[in-house]
Formats: sequence, C-alpha cells, structure tokens
Amino acid sequence: MPVRYSGLPDLSPVKGVRLAACAAGVRYRDRNDLVLMELAPGSQCAAVFTRNAFCAAPVVVAREHLAQATPRYLLVNSGNANAGTGAGGLADARACCSALAERARCEAAQVLPFSTGVIGERLPVERIEAALDTALATLSADGWSDAAHAIMTTDTVAKGVSSTLEIGGRTVTLTGMSKGSGMIRPDMATMLAYVATDADVEPGALRDCLRWAVEASFNRITVDGDTSTNDACVLVATGASGAPRLDASHPDYAAFRQAVTDVCTRLAQLIVRDGEGATKFVSVRVEGGRDSAECLQVAYTVAHSPLVKTALFASDPNWGRILAAVGRAGLAKLDIEGVGLWLGDVCIVRDGGVAPEYREADGQRVMDRDEILIRVSLARGDASETVWTTDLSHDYVSINADYRS
Amino acid sequence: MPVRYSGLPDLSPVKGVRLAACAAGVRYRDRNDLVLMELAPGSQCAAVFTRNAFCAAPVVVAREHLAQATPRYLLVNSGNANAGTGAGGLADARACCSALAERARCEAAQVLPFSTGVIGERLPVERIEAALDTALATLSADGWSDAAHAIMTTDTVAKGVSSTLEIGGRTVTLTGMSKGSGMIRPDMATMLAYVATDADVEPGALRDCLRWAVEASFNRITVDGDTSTNDACVLVATGASGAPRLDASHPDYAAFRQAVTDVCTRLAQLIVRDGEGATKFVSVRVEGGRDSAECLQVAYTVAHSPLVKTALFASDPNWGRILAAVGRAGLAKLDIEGVGLWLGDVCIVRDGGVAPEYREADGQRVMDRDEILIRVSLARGDASETVWTTDLSHDYVSINADYRS
Repeated sequence: MPVRYSGLPDLSPVKGVRLAACAAGVRYRDRNDLVLMELAPGSQCAAVFTRNAFCAAPVVVAREHLAQATPRYLLVNSGNANAGTGAGGLADARACCSALAERARCEAAQVLPFSTGVIGERLPVERIEAALDTALATLSADGWSDAAHAIMTTDTVAKGVSSTLEIGGRTVTLTGMSKGSGMIRPDMATMLAYVATDADVEPGALRDCLRWAVEASFNRITVDGDTSTNDACVLVATGASGAPRLDASHPDYAAFRQAVTDVCTRLAQLIVRDGEGATKFVSVRVEGGRDSAECLQVAYTVAHSPLVKTALFASDPNWGRILAAVGRAGLAKLDIEGVGLWLGDVCIVRDGGVAPEYREADGQRVMDRDEILIRVSLARGDASETVWTTDLSHDYVSINADYRS
Repeated sequence: MPVRYSGLPDLSPVKGVRLAACAAGVRYRDRNDLVLMELAPGSQCAAVFTRNAFCAAPVVVAREHLAQATPRYLLVNSGNANAGTGAGGLADARACCSALAERARCEAAQVLPFSTGVIGERLPVERIEAALDTALATLSADGWSDAAHAIMTTDTVAKGVSSTLEIGGRTVTLTGMSKGSGMIRPDMATMLAYVATDADVEPGALRDCLRWAVEASFNRITVDGDTSTNDACVLVATGASGAPRLDASHPDYAAFRQAVTDVCTRLAQLIVRDGEGATKFVSVRVEGGRDSAECLQVAYTVAHSPLVKTALFASDPNWGRILAAVGRAGLAKLDIEGVGLWLGDVCIVRDGGVAPEYREADGQRVMDRDEILIRVSLARGDASETVWTTDLSHDYVSINADYRS
C-alpha cells in the first residue's frame, strides 16, 4: 500500500470534459486499459513532455498534433509504451489517431495519443481500434475515477484530485489524475498526468500556468532517478464554467495558477506515495544555497543515494550517509563547517560537526515515522528547494526484477 | 560469493615493505582490524584521496603528513571510518600517528592514517594504541594476505594481486590489496587500495603513474554511485629491487606504468566482483562519443540506473531500460537514429531501432551469464570508455538496511 494513501476521493466532473475507460486487451486481461477523453469545442490544451532523447512514438505524434490543431480527444493506453519501436511505432500511433478521428468526425491532428507500459513492443493497433466504438459510446462526465484506474501500470492505487476556486464570482472546478510509480525522475513531467478545468484561460497563460505548476510539482519528485520515455502532463481548460476569461494580467490569474500548482503537487506526491516498493514518503529540503540549481543538486544527490534510501527503508538514522551524499554532490567550495543537518525537528549536525545535544534515540524517533523530512542547511545563500522521494526496499527490487515475467 | 572470484592468490613480498595485522577491537571481535605497513627508508610514496567534501579525519591528516614528510608507516583500521567526527576526529587520527611515531622512533608526520567503516562514531584511540606494540613486533614481509583480510568491512573476500616485470634486466615485484564493496563510485580513488613495488621510481614519475593508473581503474568502477568519505589509494616504491631508477623519460617507464595500471584494474574489478549483493559483473562500454566525458556520462547513467540494474539482477534482456538511460543521459543533440546497442555480441538496436534479426532468446542467452557486456554506440565521434559495475539485488538492500544493526 502507498505511504499514507487515504483512497481515491470523489473526482468532480469538469464541464466540457467526458471520459470513457474500456478493456482493449493491449496487454492485460480483464481490466480497462484504454481511456478516451473528449474535450468540448473551444477547449484550450497545454502539454509538456519528457526530455528523454528516446521519447516514445506517441510523444512525437502528440507534439506534432498539438502544433497543428486544437485537440478534441486524448487517447491513452496502458500496458504498452510504444517506445523504442522506430518508424513502425510512429505509424501505429498515427493509425490509432486516424481511426478515432474517422469515427469521431474530426481531424487526426485533433487527437493526442499517449501510451504507458512496456518499452520495445509494437502496439496492438487493431485491438485498440476495435475498442474505439465502445469508448465513444460510453463517454461520460463522471468517467474520471474509471479513467484514473485504467491508466495504471505498476501503480498499486489510482491517483486523482479535485478542487474548486472562485473566478469572478463563479465557481471553477479542477480535476486531475496521474499514474506512475517507477522510472520516475521527471525532467519535464512525470509519466502521465491530466488536469482539466472548466475555467476559461487564454492559451499563452494556460501554457505558462502548466510550466509553472509542473516545475513546482512533477519536476520535484524522484523515485529512482530514471526519466521515462513517455512522460507527459496535459492541462485542459474548457471554459465551460462561464467564468470570465483569464489571461496573465487578470487579478484572479495568480490564484488560478496556484490552484493548478496545488493539484499538480498533490498528484505528484501521490506518485511518490505509490512509488515502487515505497514504505516512506521523504521530503528532502535544502536551504541556504546560492541558487535553486545547487539546492536541487544536493537534494537529488541525497534523494538518489542508494545508501540513504536503504537506510530510510531500515528506519536507520544513519546520518553519515546523508552527509556523504551532500559532500559528493559536487558543490564548488562547499564550506563543510557551515553545513547543518536535521531529521524532522532533530538537529544532528551543526557547523559541520555532530550537534552536542544529539542523541541517537531522537534520530530514531524521526526515522520510525512513515513521513520523514531530511533538511540540509548549506549556509551560503538564500535559495531553498524541496524534492520528494521514497526509500529503496526489497519490494522495489522485486517489482523491477519481475516486471516483465 | 563474489562474481567469478577465484580466491586470494599468493601475494608476493615486496622488498622494503613489511606488514602486520592484529586485533585491536575497534568494532569487531575476534578478527584482525588493524594493519601496519612499514616502508624501508628511502621509499617513495604517492597517494590520491576522495573528493568528497566531507572527507574523513584520516584523509585530512594523511594529506597534511604527505606534504610534510616522507612516509615510513601506513596505519589502517577497519570498523570505524573516523568520518563526520569533527575536531575530535582529527585529534584522534593525530593521536594514533603520534603514538605509533613514539614507539617506532620516527616523526608523527611520517605516519599516514587510514580508516574505513562506520561513519559518525569516535575512534577508540586507546584500543588502537594498545595494539601498536604487537603490530610493530609482528611486522613481516609475508604479511600481505593477513593485511588484505584485516582491512575488510562489508567485503566478503580479501582482494589482492601480485605481478612482476623486468626493468633494466632486474625483476621488479608489484603487490597490491584493496577493500570496498559499497559506497563505491570513486571520484578519485576507491575505498582503500595499497600497491607497493620494489622498483625505484622518481617521486614525480610515481605520482604521474598513480594518477594514470587510478584514472583507468578505480575511477571506472561504480557499485552504487556513492563516493566514500574515506577513499584512498597509495602507491609505494621502495627501490629495494636494485633495478635502475625510473623517471618519466626512462625507456621502461611506460611498461612500469602499465604494470601498475594492470594491478590497479584487477584490484578495482575485484571490488566490483565483491560489490554489495552483486550477482553479475557488468562492463558498460560506450563507443563513438565526441569525447571521453560524454562516453562516461552515458556509461555512468546506464551503470547507475536502478531499472537497468534490477533487470540485470533478473537476467531480463529488458533493453528498453538501457535505451531509456542512454536517452536521459543529457547528451546535447544526440541523434537517436545513429545509436546502436549490443548485449555481448548480440546486436539489439541499430540505427535507433530494433535490429530486424534480433530475437529475445539471443538477448536472454547473454543476460543469463554472470559476466555481461553492455555496448552502446553513439556514432558521433571516436572516443570510447568502459566502466564496470554490478546489478542491484535483494542482497544489496539487505546488506545496507542491516549494516548498523
């Protein structure tokens, strides 16, 4: 079970968005593995994708289509990533879009394809095509929960969040879902995440809003340091709420952007809580850096250290491993005399040495928890950053050693 | 058991070097944990140390002493790293050197201290001092094997190598030992390694020789990406063989440097073979890069990927994970159409796509072995690099989750 997961909440419908989930038999039997999202005409759509050079075929096609037309449909399959599949894979992704466009009477470029699952196997295009009529016939505004389940791969739970805010006196809804639990260290956006709102947002402001939100959420989580070939995060604004149109100069824009950021942060943290084999939810906060980049450099070095992660799994306050990770993070001219280290509220290292009042029992108390804050102070500037990660457990090894078998 | 370890060979005495190993009770009971190496007067000594900003107290002191005097003694303890111990730890390391110097009638600066083991605990100086008389009384030219055992921590086997070469018609001996199996991704030198020769080498040439050898050996291995606080590699030349003195212009210098490099490479590979939880010995070779740096960047990204490492543990030819690691290694303008991938002699990816003749059974045959070559071709230059690493197994997690308990 994920770390402190309280179940999938009721996901609010978003005016202008309908979803369907059905079983196409892409890889799994007896479960839904295909999701169709329909966006009302006039909806705006922004997206960010993986920076992995070996990005998957659907990422290439989705980028192309997004540049050509305004999306009407998002088509997502789980079980097969359609990555490492070369020209054939591109043709497969395009064939799926065309098949849907024909049935839905739109342009193929108005369909964005997404895939997640095993790399290096061809997509079963015919089985996906055969499921499209059912998908179109069962579209529903209440489809979020089923969709959140259907996009899962090694996820153990479905991930979704809803919230509302007021814009110009009208209530606007935000609902999002995400999936992913391994191959997670997004450089751009994690695995797959979809956030929709019935707010009306000017396209440039929507893109700005997504970039801002992703940077503060999906780009701050790491399970294993591996950036997927298929990462994508999509933000849809249908405008169907009747609330006034937002652009970057609108007085409510900042609040809207924060609401999107909050939804993305909760979705991103859900991915970490459901990280492969995770038994701990760990925040690594680095303060007092010269700039954001060096804070992240230290935070990721700590968050990726297998020795730190196994100590977290063992609930072992083995702070020497954290210090060693800080020390090898490659910061120029780090004055170790200024470095401080806390586990939760317990100060372990101050001025580069063990705090005189530190007792192992105090560190143990923090490590015994399932939510742990590691705080490092560099004392050489005003920047700070936080990343969220997991421990490294036997289950992580089992899940990834057995995934294809 | 380490991957293809054939036992500790007979380690040849090196004229001018005597060793003793004894039980000081630093941390372990009923085993040797203290090693003393005595170098004959006139011996030359070169050393490289960890680049970790939080380097251990003995590293600080050894660097100081090396700058002040010509070493006569190396004093090594296992069980306690004397790292993260602040000013007290520095005093402890100095106290050990002084205690030995007094008994051996030399300057304290002629003693180099080394420690390996748990971080963050004070060194039991009195117990080490109490063992020094025994150590001095039992020094022997045949002490290499006992010393190689006494410096072990989480190592499962002792690591040593001997070889000979002819210089000016005289036979010169090289013998080395190393320890380490976790927290291994040397930035400078791994854990602890000591190589001694009775060749006579001019000090500048000896330093050049060590830098060259370490760069090609200890700086090409990684178990878990963690650089230790205590890494050190020492090269001693006693000159006692009677062979002519080598400097960089001597016709035999290149052969000598290569012999040192070969000894270091075998010692480094022994560390990988004994890597924590290792079931595979993996060479990651990256060819066709623009320069050495980008080849290493790709090689280390592959070698550190938990997904690649768990696939290796499972003997799963899940090449998509290797490709994904290559893709996220951060190479500017990587043309994926040019990338090739081989497991052993089996070509899996050519021109950026799956090779038409590839059959999973062929990849499986390679992955079933315990020595595996992953070869990546970038097709954009003439540089190539190889790093050696391990898989990520359940035992890795167990060892590091249980280390202190």
